[in-house]
Amino acid sequence: MSQRRVGLWLIGGCGGVGSSTALGLAALNRGLTPSTGLVTALPQFAALDLDSPATFVVGGHDIRRANFLSAVRELHSRSNVFDERVIEACAGDLEAWSANIRPGVVYRPNPAIAAFADRPDVHPAATARLAIDQIQRDLKAFRETAELDQLVVVNAASTEPPFVLGDDHQSLERLLLALDRPGVVALPTSSLYAFAAIDAGFPYVNLTPSRGATLPALEELARKRNVPIAGQDLKTGETLLKSVLAPMFARRNLRVLSWVGHNILGNRDGQVLNDPDNKASKVKSKDALLAELLGYRPQSLVSIEYVESLDDWKTAWDHIHFEGFLGTRMTLQFTWQGCDSLLAAPLVLDVARLTLLAQRRGDAGALRHLACFFKSPIGVSEHDFGKQFEMLEDYAGTAKSTQS
Amino acid sequence: MSQRRVGLWLIGGCGGVGSSTALGLAALNRGLTPSTGLVTALPQFAALDLDSPATFVVGGHDIRRANFLSAVRELHSRSNVFDERVIEACAGDLEAWSANIRPGVVYRPNPAIAAFADRPDVHPAATARLAIDQIQRDLKAFRETAELDQLVVVNAASTEPPFVLGDDHQSLERLLLALDRPGVVALPTSSLYAFAAIDAGFPYVNLTPSRGATLPALEELARKRNVPIAGQDLKTGETLLKSVLAPMFARRNLRVLSWVGHNILGNRDGQVLNDPDNKASKVKSKDALLAELLGYRPQSLVSIEYVESLDDWKTAWDHIHFEGFLGTRMTLQFTWQGCDSLLAAPLVLDVARLTLLAQRRGDAGALRHLACFFKSPIGVSEHDFGKQFEMLEDYAGTAKSTQS
Amino acid sequence: MSQRRVGLWLIGGCGGVGSSTALGLAALNRGLTPSTGLVTALPQFAALDLDSPATFVVGGHDIRRANFLSAVRELHSRSNVFDERVIEACAGDLEAWSANIRPGVVYRPNPAIAAFADRPDVHPAATARLAIDQIQRDLKAFRETAELDQLVVVNAASTEPPFVLGDDHQSLERLLLALDRPGVVALPTSSLYAFAAIDAGFPYVNLTPSRGATLPALEELARKRNVPIAGQDLKTGETLLKSVLAPMFARRNLRVLSWVGHNILGNRDGQVLNDPDNKASKVKSKDALLAELLGYRPQSLVSIEYVESLDDWKTAWDHIHFEGFLGTRMTLQFTWQGCDSLLAAPLVLDVARLTLLAQRRGDAGALRHLACFFKSPIGVSEHDFGKQFEMLEDYAGTAKSTQS
Amino acid sequence: MSQRRVGLWLIGGCGGVGSSTALGLAALNRGLTPSTGLVTALPQFAALDLDSPATFVVGGHDIRRANFLSAVRELHSRSNVFDERVIEACAGDLEAWSANIRPGVVYRPNPAIAAFADRPDVHPAATARLAIDQIQRDLKAFRETAELDQLVVVNAASTEPPFVLGDDHQSLERLLLALDRPGVVALPTSSLYAFAAIDAGFPYVNLTPSRGATLPALEELARKRNVPIAGQDLKTGETLLKSVLAPMFARRNLRVLSWVGHNILGNRDGQVLNDPDNKASKVKSKDALLAELLGYRPQSLVSIEYVESLDDWKTAWDHIHFEGFLGTRMTLQFTWQGCDSLLAAPLVLDVARLTLLAQRRGDAGALRHLACFFKSPIGVSEHDFGKQFEMLEDYAGTAKSTQS
Repeated sequence: MSQRRVGLWLIGGCGGVGSSTALGLAALNRGLTPSTGLVTALPQFAALDLDSPATFVVGGHDIRRANFLSAVRELHSRSNVFDERVIEACAGDLEAWSANIRPGVVYRPNPAIAAFADRPDVHPAATARLAIDQIQRDLKAFRETAELDQLVVVNAASTEPPFVLGDDHQSLERLLLALDRPGVVALPTSSLYAFAAIDAGFPYVNLTPSRGATLPALEELARKRNVPIAGQDLKTGETLLKSVLAPMFARRNLRVLSWVGHNILGNRDGQVLNDPDNKASKVKSKDALLAELLGYRPQSLVSIEYVESLDDWKTAWDHIHFEGFLGTRMTLQFTWQGCDSLLAAPLVLDVARLTLLAQRRGDAGALRHLACFFKSPIGVSEHDFGKQFEMLEDYAGTAKSTQS
Repeated sequence: MSQRRVGLWLIGGCGGVGSSTALGLAALNRGLTPSTGLVTALPQFAALDLDSPATFVVGGHDIRRANFLSAVRELHSRSNVFDERVIEACAGDLEAWSANIRPGVVYRPNPAIAAFADRPDVHPAATARLAIDQIQRDLKAFRETAELDQLVVVNAASTEPPFVLGDDHQSLERLLLALDRPGVVALPTSSLYAFAAIDAGFPYVNLTPSRGATLPALEELARKRNVPIAGQDLKTGETLLKSVLAPMFARRNLRVLSWVGHNILGNRDGQVLNDPDNKASKVKSKDALLAELLGYRPQSLVSIEYVESLDDWKTAWDHIHFEGFLGTRMTLQFTWQGCDSLLAAPLVLDVARLTLLAQRRGDAGALRHLACFFKSPIGVSEHDFGKQFEMLEDYAGTAKSTQS
Repeated sequence: MSQRRVGLWLIGGCGGVGSSTALGLAALNRGLTPSTGLVTALPQFAALDLDSPATFVVGGHDIRRANFLSAVRELHSRSNVFDERVIEACAGDLEAWSANIRPGVVYRPNPAIAAFADRPDVHPAATARLAIDQIQRDLKAFRETAELDQLVVVNAASTEPPFVLGDDHQSLERLLLALDRPGVVALPTSSLYAFAAIDAGFPYVNLTPSRGATLPALEELARKRNVPIAGQDLKTGETLLKSVLAPMFARRNLRVLSWVGHNILGNRDGQVLNDPDNKASKVKSKDALLAELLGYRPQSLVSIEYVESLDDWKTAWDHIHFEGFLGTRMTLQFTWQGCDSLLAAPLVLDVARLTLLAQRRGDAGALRHLACFFKSPIGVSEHDFGKQFEMLEDYAGTAKSTQS
Repeated sequence: MSQRRVGLWLIGGCGGVGSSTALGLAALNRGLTPSTGLVTALPQFAALDLDSPATFVVGGHDIRRANFLSAVRELHSRSNVFDERVIEACAGDLEAWSANIRPGVVYRPNPAIAAFADRPDVHPAATARLAIDQIQRDLKAFRETAELDQLVVVNAASTEPPFVLGDDHQSLERLLLALDRPGVVALPTSSLYAFAAIDAGFPYVNLTPSRGATLPALEELARKRNVPIAGQDLKTGETLLKSVLAPMFARRNLRVLSWVGHNILGNRDGQVLNDPDNKASKVKSKDALLAELLGYRPQSLVSIEYVESLDDWKTAWDHIHFEGFLGTRMTLQFTWQGCDSLLAAPLVLDVARLTLLAQRRGDAGALRHLACFFKSPIGVSEHDFGKQFEMLEDYAGTAKSTQS
């Protein structure tokens, strides 16, 4: 374990999630914070050959002018998180890693996201192919200069609108033809990065509901290049609760009549999701699991709204109306007040560590055992969090039998 | 299945749970209500040879003047539950079953419970042995007159104060000696009923946290008589939620700092639990699972308070304060508004059906596969509701593999 | 008081509010229910010469096939409200009053509302003038046959989309010209009824945010005919809470950063409000008071969404984020679970009684002392519920001095 | 205003409230924080000749080893409040004021409070008279050395158990005799301080429900010495909400069936209140206003419990069950998450400023116009917050007429 050097490349690295991940990595390495929130720090996973914090070097793309340290300070002052002494102790690490940040590519950008692009040196790309080439140059340069054994590429950028697939996306052969064609949006930005990473042999993890690597042509590419992929849409709050509460109702044969969820938040993610197009991707990802878990489709509503004063504190109110014996109607309500970036950051480290391990073990394509981390796990229809977690324990060889 | 006749004997039968169970059984038999709320009606258990509603005859003990029909009407008018048309359609069944109600025994009763004993013909018993004899006469008479193949005895009476075990309870031999000794409270009332049932060969189910059959001498008796027992303390609301939420926090390595739960309710159960002695049994049962599920003991508070206006509508507010990555403190709150009797009633039918089946299969002693129904499952330390449910599915041969 | 006979005419009478009002009136008259919920039953108003329940005869317009009794029974079975014995005891009254229901007029109807018009004999009107004539015929016929001394007309119909005023609405003279012009939507339906009532000398009360009588030409008409008007948009739940909580924050100099309110409900009102056009009227009325009460405009969100299973049980969750001393941010959340029709019905009787009294006293135009009943009180900018209530007490001569 | 120098003497000054008040005063004086949270900063009170922050010098008694700066830093690190830059900028002021802290007197102390007394130089007093003498020496020395025109003494110490009055407390004459009698607890500690202050001519304000100045003998003394007194028990959270919500229910004639309030908090106040004796004072003060405001006594429960992880963040859940028209039962729930010290601190400045002004105006005895600040306002039975606030506006000559 000791001699490896691994890279963590964060697309949209200077957002709340990316910068919290960087701070957390530095703080863990310096012994300044316990491993609370890290799933891979649980005893069940102690025997896995996971990379220690000291092994990691961080880099990333961003279209904003920020760096890891400025982003951490902004989050600290706006959302009242982090201990200042931890920030100061890790400032050097964050500055060093900030030198690895490269300007993102801008290829037919989504307006809600492009509004943030204030970095003067972002790369406008004439074709998808040129964008991919630029991304690959950045990734490979990082591997060289940081002398990395492995590099995992993680999409922590803002959520894109839904992207409908066409004929070009059904096979790698057709996609390759489309990439050079001018005037055609062959791929959304998230998929350009996914293509670039996978094609260059780097595992790709998608933290968002954006399209990313989930199209047949890219799945084909991942298998061809023997590269693991993971995603998508980290499950951190309201949806995590759905994935444990819906099975409870199902197992008690209590009929959910309606499930209403209202989310309010005030960070950049919230601002982007305030755009109806971008919000559509998210709402779909937050809502789909209910029918899967219950076996029927109750009336459901999911809203996500931007409330500036909340900053990174995502607050969700869910109202679940259900029917029990003899037609009796009852109610469960919950309020979740969580700091989004801090809920996501340790999971980023978890999936990065597990993906790097998978690559070393020779796993390729969708990592199904990571389902418990995601709202829309690639290739997995199981949405029961308990069962998803067992899949991870099975992988680690530590699933407890229920018979003992 | 068709020719069997089985009896359901409810101790404290005219309370909310007992009378709702009787109404539900009649309504199911008449096709007036769907099977919502019945776990054993789920597809996973379709292949088990469970008794259909038509198979059941209901009887019970009570120390109050009520009967099944009057109790149902009282619950309807106080708590605004049930459809009047269902009550009317089932009134005949409830009246017929009410004829099977026998006066309860009163042996050194707990004051909070004795306050309800307004039935003039309750049996004051001079010794525990005499009380047991009377109970057995009632049970056997019911089996005779109702021509039953099997009879399951269910404790639906009010919660007793904790009862500390002594030397007399450590073996059947010593208990038998103690039973005839005058002037000694050899057993709490719940255990007298348990002894009577088990000794006469009838399975015994304890819906409450009262002592019931959980003492070495009675467990010995159950094995000797080859009788299944199940319990205890039905898991219907707040504790059910704990048993799915605590594993979620554990699996995400989120550290629960404090878990506060306040329960308010206004039914007779609430009145009895308002007595600090009686409440102690309940609070222990509601609180113990947290340390088991989390692996450490967070600060926790559980209160149960009598609020008359709520009647059967138990309302619970839980406030869970937890720490995530980099020391960030976050909060989950939930409010549960459930009708206690209606949450419990279908589970009474479930455990009755499963216990009768177990007896036919020759199972004796604690039925561990029923853990998912109880707050303090006898003989089982697993408190994760998902895993407990898998134990039931395993028993039914329908547990899904998570690997598919 | 004894000899008067007064009429209560409910536009949209067979909705939840109208039918609950009719049932309540009958139940009060028969002594079957206490006066809980009736503001005018408070001691402060005991000295006013208000009409007793026995004085009232009920009639109304509707475009649906229902009548008072069927509507009450539907509400009972869907929303689990009312005591069946009260319904049965009042069934005769409801049937008698149902004979006074006339088909509503349909003049260029709003689609969301027209979807409910299943009554075969509704009056399609070619011009606004013809619609008004028809309405007036119905009102006058009711006065004749029921031998009424006074008649108050109350708009309990579904909420219309916002209606922007033009030149035609600025004076009575211009409006009268416009009314006969074919092919022009001179007025929304709510205003046609308002015109008809006022023009015929009947006081008009608007329970909804629809335009109703709030246009200069109709206010002129009210003064000319010496008729009192009142409204609008009954304040029953979330907005009532805003009108007591916002002054609390203001008086403590606590700065409200954001106020988010989510309302879910499942009755016909909810269905109509699910239409974005119709919802716009409501949201405006629910939101406007905040800036008035606080003296600045915090970020605010109000949503109203149709959740079928809730029926008449409107549930509102409000999240209020505020800043205190030294920049400290704190939170108040509330959940309101109220039965909309039953919250509104007693207020309908209150405003009807107060409006009839005002007419006898010779008041004309907007009744400012009724501000405490409405979200958007006509002619009153005061939104503090306490101060509004003092206006009513002042009118009754019973305002307590705070100096004593 | 400019030349005056006034003193603010805080008994229990190094608690959360006292130290936050000191920090706030320094920050206001340095222009580092807006006046949010300060009632006296509202425009209605602009014309009053109130002392500006620059006018104040702070001192106090404490039995713990802390000082203003260490207490502020502790609160910052435990409860995540305050901006570090503000603390640093005000550190000098806090240190200077800390030099004015004197050891508290310990006279037959309450065990729950005495547990905190770690200051080695606290004054054990053999009789109440000796304790009073010591307190007066400290107060007068402060006035001398700080060259103060006026000094207000504020009780910010922990809550004492209820203290039942006897014959000795009914007149000043009898109390004076009792004070010198050895072996008799003539007065609780809070009243010793109150006696000392009033007797020396210093206005006395009681922020807590402890007995303080509310006994006939001390009221007599206040009149005799012409000294204003104010209190008691600051109304900052749950009770403030009760004082605006209960009038709302009353004015709508909605019948409150039960009102349950559960408070959890983790600061020193919470630790003391965890003692049943001390809690009794608080619960009484939080509960009494309901019957006053509603005109009847609904079932009510108030609990306050110590939950360490919450530190200064008092969280209250209130469940209000009420009956509306036709017997319909509905529910309002709220959750209040407020930082107790920061809610109280600006009010301390408000009452200090208003009390000093009152003394200059020649007011003596209970300041009734300060009722809006307190749970148990001395000499005032009005508990409606809106009406109480009008009393303050009347005093300032700025009460708005509701008729305009």
